[in-house]
Amino acid sequence: MDDKERLGNPATGAGLSRRGFLRAGAAVGAMAAGAGAARAEEQPDPLITEVQPWASGWGDGVDATPYGLPIRFEDDVIRRNVPWLTADTISSINFTPIHALDGTITPTGCAFERHHSGAIELAKEDYRLMINGLVDQPLVFTYEDLERFPRVNRTYFLECAANSGMEWAGAQLNGVQFTQGMIHNMQYSGIPLRLLLEEAGVKPEGKWVYVEGADASSNGRSIPLEKAMDDVLVAIKANGEALRKEHGYPARLVVPGWEGNMWVKWLRRVEVTDEAVQSREETSKYTDTLADGTSRKWTWVMDAKSVVTSPSPQMPIKHGKGPLVITGMAWSGRGAITKVDVSIDGGANWQEARLAEPGEDMAVSRFYLEIDWDGSEMLLQSRATDSTGYVQPTKAQLRAIRGENSVYHNNGIQTWLVKENGESENVEVSS
Amino acid sequence: MDDKERLGNPATGAGLSRRGFLRAGAAVGAMAAGAGAARAEEQPDPLITEVQPWASGWGDGVDATPYGLPIRFEDDVIRRNVPWLTADTISSINFTPIHALDGTITPTGCAFERHHSGAIELAKEDYRLMINGLVDQPLVFTYEDLERFPRVNRTYFLECAANSGMEWAGAQLNGVQFTQGMIHNMQYSGIPLRLLLEEAGVKPEGKWVYVEGADASSNGRSIPLEKAMDDVLVAIKANGEALRKEHGYPARLVVPGWEGNMWVKWLRRVEVTDEAVQSREETSKYTDTLADGTSRKWTWVMDAKSVVTSPSPQMPIKHGKGPLVITGMAWSGRGAITKVDVSIDGGANWQEARLAEPGEDMAVSRFYLEIDWDGSEMLLQSRATDSTGYVQPTKAQLRAIRGENSVYHNNGIQTWLVKENGESENVEVSS
Repeated sequence: MDDKERLGNPATGAGLSRRGFLRAGAAVGAMAAGAGAARAEEQPDPLITEVQPWASGWGDGVDATPYGLPIRFEDDVIRRNVPWLTADTISSINFTPIHALDGTITPTGCAFERHHSGAIELAKEDYRLMINGLVDQPLVFTYEDLERFPRVNRTYFLECAANSGMEWAGAQLNGVQFTQGMIHNMQYSGIPLRLLLEEAGVKPEGKWVYVEGADASSNGRSIPLEKAMDDVLVAIKANGEALRKEHGYPARLVVPGWEGNMWVKWLRRVEVTDEAVQSREETSKYTDTLADGTSRKWTWVMDAKSVVTSPSPQMPIKHGKGPLVITGMAWSGRGAITKVDVSIDGGANWQEARLAEPGEDMAVSRFYLEIDWDGSEMLLQSRATDSTGYVQPTKAQLRAIRGENSVYHNNGIQTWLVKENGESENVEVSS
Repeated sequence: MDDKERLGNPATGAGLSRRGFLRAGAAVGAMAAGAGAARAEEQPDPLITEVQPWASGWGDGVDATPYGLPIRFEDDVIRRNVPWLTADTISSINFTPIHALDGTITPTGCAFERHHSGAIELAKEDYRLMINGLVDQPLVFTYEDLERFPRVNRTYFLECAANSGMEWAGAQLNGVQFTQGMIHNMQYSGIPLRLLLEEAGVKPEGKWVYVEGADASSNGRSIPLEKAMDDVLVAIKANGEALRKEHGYPARLVVPGWEGNMWVKWLRRVEVTDEAVQSREETSKYTDTLADGTSRKWTWVMDAKSVVTSPSPQMPIKHGKGPLVITGMAWSGRGAITKVDVSIDGGANWQEARLAEPGEDMAVSRFYLEIDWDGSEMLLQSRATDSTGYVQPTKAQLRAIRGENSVYHNNGIQTWLVKENGESENVEVSS
């Protein structure tokens, strides 16, 4: 074998060879040929050859953390906001550190928050959910009542309509946490809203539901009855445990595939109406104004989108040229992700990435592409295709149709300029 | 409609009717007929009719918790140990609060821990993984090297071989957290061990791998090469984020379907050998001794098992008779869960429960059975069937074959005596 190409350091201090790695890569999927990670150590590694402190005594006992937190070395993997983006931190947004995550489930502790009047503390005993309006019998449910209804488990992404909003005006924020981080993907346990509506009995003239939260903003939104009776859930758990305060404890609405603002937290009322309420949150806000000043009406669904999370501005390549794992997330509000393509030359050429698992409807998919980086500059992009055949557009294509007046629904292709030193930058390509 | 049976309180203060609820139940699955939750309030509910404090001002801003934790009302949903069970808390065990959880993903913060010499703190920079023994070229990988290999995402359960061990001697611990709580189910991102072994090049005479951790116990175990080359992973993330310190940060072994002790944490070495090492952890420990004093050899796989998590001793029924959701978990180390049956009369009669989602290989399934509880005593049991056709046995059947000398591999059917007051107790039935 050629002893110049092995990845990993010979325990003996001999040279490197990538024979095995190439075999391995080939066995898993796309793995380009090329130079290996040329970092040889002539001397045996003391971390292997000498007994270390952590191997010489007791570690922590099981009483150390009754409810565990990340190890201190990971304390930069947190939600962050962008102070200048909104007036105050209470009606503000923070962002999921998607650059540092893998898999598809978003750890609840770093799943982004967006509040209109802050995260409220509402105890289960004080929780009430009212169903009123065009129903046979208006009803008020306690939390305990909700627990007595049949429930389901489903994994869905939640994306804020304003995710990537700053990108309408061009590349501005230098980190995927801030450009695409208003998203999380959790497994919900909840009661189909249909069951609660059927309990109250929807009158024939009922065509919409108006949903509102128990916080001061109430954040009221109108949802067509058809959607409300289809897959909308009143969730009481996320990722297996009670909802977090900032995610709507003790119960929130889950509106699969539709913009996050409709996923009303601290859900307090569902009113059956004959038409949309045309509330503030669905007229003056969360509406896309076009170049000619007119606005698109009812833009609820989040279209297919993807982004490379590593390498990215917050995740520089530190190991130089050679084997490189490119990874990212893709999702669609209209169905499942069926394909993600990756380009390293700004969209001129595309390679199909490997989906970690088959795409699921309205849930995040993880993709990987293993390449052998030659160390030269890359214009890194990803492009998602969903089960409806829809292909994620470029920002230029979006602007041609929508103009630049909106801050919402930007699902354009993101570009990272990866430099020779491994650092990346948020850039735009003309096409 | 009969206004005496509605679940939920009429906003108007009128009576109750379950017409809608029965319709709803029928639409979702098994839902027995019977009396509703008869709790009427004659007066309008001030929590609905009056503006509440939490609707009158600002809540928390997004900077309140950069990494979120559960709301204070849930502070009893934590890992707990049983002081008298082991000599000290460092080499001890704690238990996942499965009674309070739902869905299938175990929240990482309350996923149980078991250490042999405590949880160690090992930084990524100090991490080394050595592959040696019967290989073409012994190698040492840094954490960064691992990140350059192709990785996969898979969701698997980890169950300690001693889970339910106390139950061999009869019903002892009065809570499902303690009787079946040495289990968690997470989504892992990791590198197939096969790729690392192929990188080093396994010699033809290599038939086993001996794996050990970087902690003082080293917790060495032998694994047949066939399994090591099949689905074993070197995991670097769990539930989307870096492994927690107590779960083996920065890298642990994932051995799908096999006993938890083999999932070596802080993985430091994989030695390819021609035969099993017969280490302490696989001879004097983690071995089932039978009634005649002989021991079963190589009992790695965790057989199909299930348990009702609610109602259970820690989850009393507080709402009295009427609609009741029975839920629990099921898993198998040999494949996917295909069916879970539930009995309310100690195994005399069985009803098929509803699986929340199709079973996945070597992962936890969630089941639900909606019944209309008549308020009388129940002997509540669940029984899992997996994709190999294996059916979970009763404790009596297990004891007849294995005796009562072992503390390991007890996958017997659990029984809860649910009393008329809604409280439950861990009991055994003769059959």
